Amino acid sequence: MNFTAKQIAELVQGTIEGNPDAIVNDVSKIEEGKPQTLTFLANPKYTKYIYTTKASVVIVNDSFKAEQPLTTTLIKVPDAYLALAALLDMYEQSLPKKTGIEQPAFIDKTATIGDFVYIGAFSYIGEKAKIGKNVQIYPQAYIGDNVEIKDNSIIYPGVKIYKHCKIGENCIIHAGAIIGGDGFGFAPDANKNYKKIPQVGNVIIEDHVEIGANTTIDRATMGSTIVRKGAKLDNLIQVAHNVEVGEKTVIAAQTGIAGSTKIGKECMFGGQVGVSGHIHVADKTRVAAQTGIAGTIKKEATALMGSPAMNVMQFNKSFVIFRRLPELSAQIDELKREIQNLKSE
Amino acid sequence: MNFTAKQIAELVQGTIEGNPDAIVNDVSKIEEGKPQTLTFLANPKYTKYIYTTKASVVIVNDSFKAEQPLTTTLIKVPDAYLALAALLDMYEQSLPKKTGIEQPAFIDKTATIGDFVYIGAFSYIGEKAKIGKNVQIYPQAYIGDNVEIKDNSIIYPGVKIYKHCKIGENCIIHAGAIIGGDGFGFAPDANKNYKKIPQVGNVIIEDHVEIGANTTIDRATMGSTIVRKGAKLDNLIQVAHNVEVGEKTVIAAQTGIAGSTKIGKECMFGGQVGVSGHIHVADKTRVAAQTGIAGTIKKEATALMGSPAMNVMQFNKSFVIFRRLPELSAQIDELKREIQNLKSE
Amino acid sequence: MNFTAKQIAELVQGTIEGNPDAIVNDVSKIEEGKPQTLTFLANPKYTKYIYTTKASVVIVNDSFKAEQPLTTTLIKVPDAYLALAALLDMYEQSLPKKTGIEQPAFIDKTATIGDFVYIGAFSYIGEKAKIGKNVQIYPQAYIGDNVEIKDNSIIYPGVKIYKHCKIGENCIIHAGAIIGGDGFGFAPDANKNYKKIPQVGNVIIEDHVEIGANTTIDRATMGSTIVRKGAKLDNLIQVAHNVEVGEKTVIAAQTGIAGSTKIGKECMFGGQVGVSGHIHVADKTRVAAQTGIAGTIKKEATALMGSPAMNVMQFNKSFVIFRRLPELSAQIDELKREIQNLKSE
Repeated sequence: MNFTAKQIAELVQGTIEGNPDAIVNDVSKIEEGKPQTLTFLANPKYTKYIYTTKASVVIVNDSFKAEQPLTTTLIKVPDAYLALAALLDMYEQSLPKKTGIEQPAFIDKTATIGDFVYIGAFSYIGEKAKIGKNVQIYPQAYIGDNVEIKDNSIIYPGVKIYKHCKIGENCIIHAGAIIGGDGFGFAPDANKNYKKIPQVGNVIIEDHVEIGANTTIDRATMGSTIVRKGAKLDNLIQVAHNVEVGEKTVIAAQTGIAGSTKIGKECMFGGQVGVSGHIHVADKTRVAAQTGIAGTIKKEATALMGSPAMNVMQFNKSFVIFRRLPELSAQIDELKREIQNLKSE
Repeated sequence: MNFTAKQIAELVQGTIEGNPDAIVNDVSKIEEGKPQTLTFLANPKYTKYIYTTKASVVIVNDSFKAEQPLTTTLIKVPDAYLALAALLDMYEQSLPKKTGIEQPAFIDKTATIGDFVYIGAFSYIGEKAKIGKNVQIYPQAYIGDNVEIKDNSIIYPGVKIYKHCKIGENCIIHAGAIIGGDGFGFAPDANKNYKKIPQVGNVIIEDHVEIGANTTIDRATMGSTIVRKGAKLDNLIQVAHNVEVGEKTVIAAQTGIAGSTKIGKECMFGGQVGVSGHIHVADKTRVAAQTGIAGTIKKEATALMGSPAMNVMQFNKSFVIFRRLPELSAQIDELKREIQNLKSE
Repeated sequence: MNFTAKQIAELVQGTIEGNPDAIVNDVSKIEEGKPQTLTFLANPKYTKYIYTTKASVVIVNDSFKAEQPLTTTLIKVPDAYLALAALLDMYEQSLPKKTGIEQPAFIDKTATIGDFVYIGAFSYIGEKAKIGKNVQIYPQAYIGDNVEIKDNSIIYPGVKIYKHCKIGENCIIHAGAIIGGDGFGFAPDANKNYKKIPQVGNVIIEDHVEIGANTTIDRATMGSTIVRKGAKLDNLIQVAHNVEVGEKTVIAAQTGIAGSTKIGKECMFGGQVGVSGHIHVADKTRVAAQTGIAGTIKKEATALMGSPAMNVMQFNKSFVIFRRLPELSAQIDELKREIQNLKSE
């Protein structure tokens, strides 16, 4: 399907610089741009490619000013990344959507199934489960007893949701994610045998949450492990029992959050971060990849790095010296010698 | 179902302080305690909540002494966490248990299935597999050829167990765990092409082991990868080929253990720990989260921290100075100046 | 089945030292060697066991020279590990292979299925998917719409491959791996709500690639996430959208690579490594476990360690001093005192 630059500019309410009749029929990355494709420029790291890209049309921020001649047509918008999101979204919405129940599927007769759902083959819907309208459950998913999934959510293949957990509206849960496995709780007896603490709570995922592939979110010992509205979790993340992840908090892959910790809202976590149990992390905290947060962070909007975590500026200052430690050590030795000399004068 | 404080005290052999007729019909967390619920206090971090909790009954350690007036009823026991475990266990035991074989399931005609099993829909039981008594295999699990699962073990949805692996009695394996995938073994040839070393060993999980969601335990190249009796592994852990995890060792989420390493018994590992291959870790070793163990630990009951790992006390002493490195560097510069001055006097 | 040392020597073109008629009927690890088994010695850490092993035959490198008397028979070859690989490969090839389509399986009528395939029960093959010759798809795998899997590849139980992804020839994908989940891309709007960037690209896995259990490889936003020919990825690895992993690069478990990063060829990564997004890592880079690579690595064959990463030699030199920091700090205090004394003289 062909679109002109002019048509796209109308869709994203942008202004054109260049040829309004330039035609595109696919998307591409700016550094691999091909003729008759649309691309975008949002990350300044890629600015250099705009002068050489073969893409016919590039969506850019209003603030972009070309420093060399351009052969491509620009569409200027306030936020190129958001405009791209909107365009790709229109594209996705235009694709045919699976509906209906593929056979064989296992749907307990006490389950409630909303209108316009898709339930893929080999999926399992347990007793008294409630599946909302327009929900898409891909093949081989497991929806345990009494689980509730609200309208418009997407459950990708092989997701497992243990009993009693609740998934909000417009959520996306990627393949292999495990929601509601037992929290890791054991009480050592006198012989150091670990006795399991049954985990009788659940997991609550609020609306507009996205959970990445193979991420695990454990059920609470009592009460609920909660992921608040609009939070986004990447792949292979561990969320332990009784944790709470705040609204609109974004967590990159392979991060782990230990039991009963509360993460504030609008935080941003890099990948492979670790957070100790039973602590609080203030709203808007920003955490560099591989950081280890060992204690409560009280001050909002702190930026952390290192393991154990420090303020990112402090960490960088210390780390600069860490790189120079052999030199420092040599300087100390030299000072010792000089002082010996002075003393023996 | 209602219970009085007196009835609960009898179940856990505790003594009551307060109203023996206080009624509970659910459990709650102490910081979110609701009327007519039972809660517990074991972690001193939560002591403050006992004075304000609305929970009607709180199980506490005998050692607890109230420092303010209490409105709740106490049940005192030697170990509140163990008593809670016992109570929740009674509760879980009282719930109806799934039994029988849901259809469709794939059970090879050469497989042996014990009495009172539950085999969920879309589960696969391979050739000559042996499933013990009371075993619960949830939907979409894969039990490969010649796999053996002993009595009373629970296999949650979507667990995959490759051929020839052995699971002991009273084990729990959570959703998405992969037992017996190939170890990561390749031999580079003259052209740096990696030739796969077929992994012809298996995995042995002994009795009373719990394995977390999406954890992966690779089969041995030859012989067995072994998880010993009573060990507890959290979610998203990697156990490489030919590793041995000792009895009653507890390992938190996202830890990785490289090939052929032997972990002793009664060790405690925090989350995101890494352990190099071909080393030994002594019994009772305690390892802080994110630690990297690069060499054999010979001394029992060592506490480790850092990457590469150091004794935890040493690490903390060094890290205190790390935080102050810019100051140290400035001090050295100052000393240099002072010596210059002394020399030029 | 019995083999003599002589027969094995012929298979691997080795020379015998000892009894050519020694019989073996199984394999074992050298440290647990049993009579009538074959073992090997490649890692020098295990050399001591060759003098005590009960294994009847040991494959060793030509360079091995016994320093004590041996009771076992040796087969000498240029590369013991490669010879073992070849032998185990012959053994594996001799085992019966599953073929045919187990019921129930879901195969869309528009899918193309090659000759001699195995498709396990409860597997799902989507619209227009193309499955090559000799492909083995184990039970409960999900092959999305338009996915292509080329000849001789093995897809283990429960693997999920999202739509449009492409898998090359002779690949092995282990249980629970997720290929083609959405990349983690969101654009914050003015209210800090994250708007999802639809991920319309795919994943391309080239020939001879092995992917470990529960590893996740995200689809590209646009274009392709690519794992090049001969690369080997261990378990629980995260490969983000638009990443490229170079030819014959080997990556150990739990490593994470952030979006749009390009890893060169013939690199070797330890476990739990983290790599930032939008950077390049040069060919033949070697990376110690738990390293954090924050910026582009331009020089080939660099060895890295630490977080943030440093040259491994530099890291070790700095870390030696880190361990001694309390001592250094004390020395500085002592120097201060001495200078005070000198000044007051």
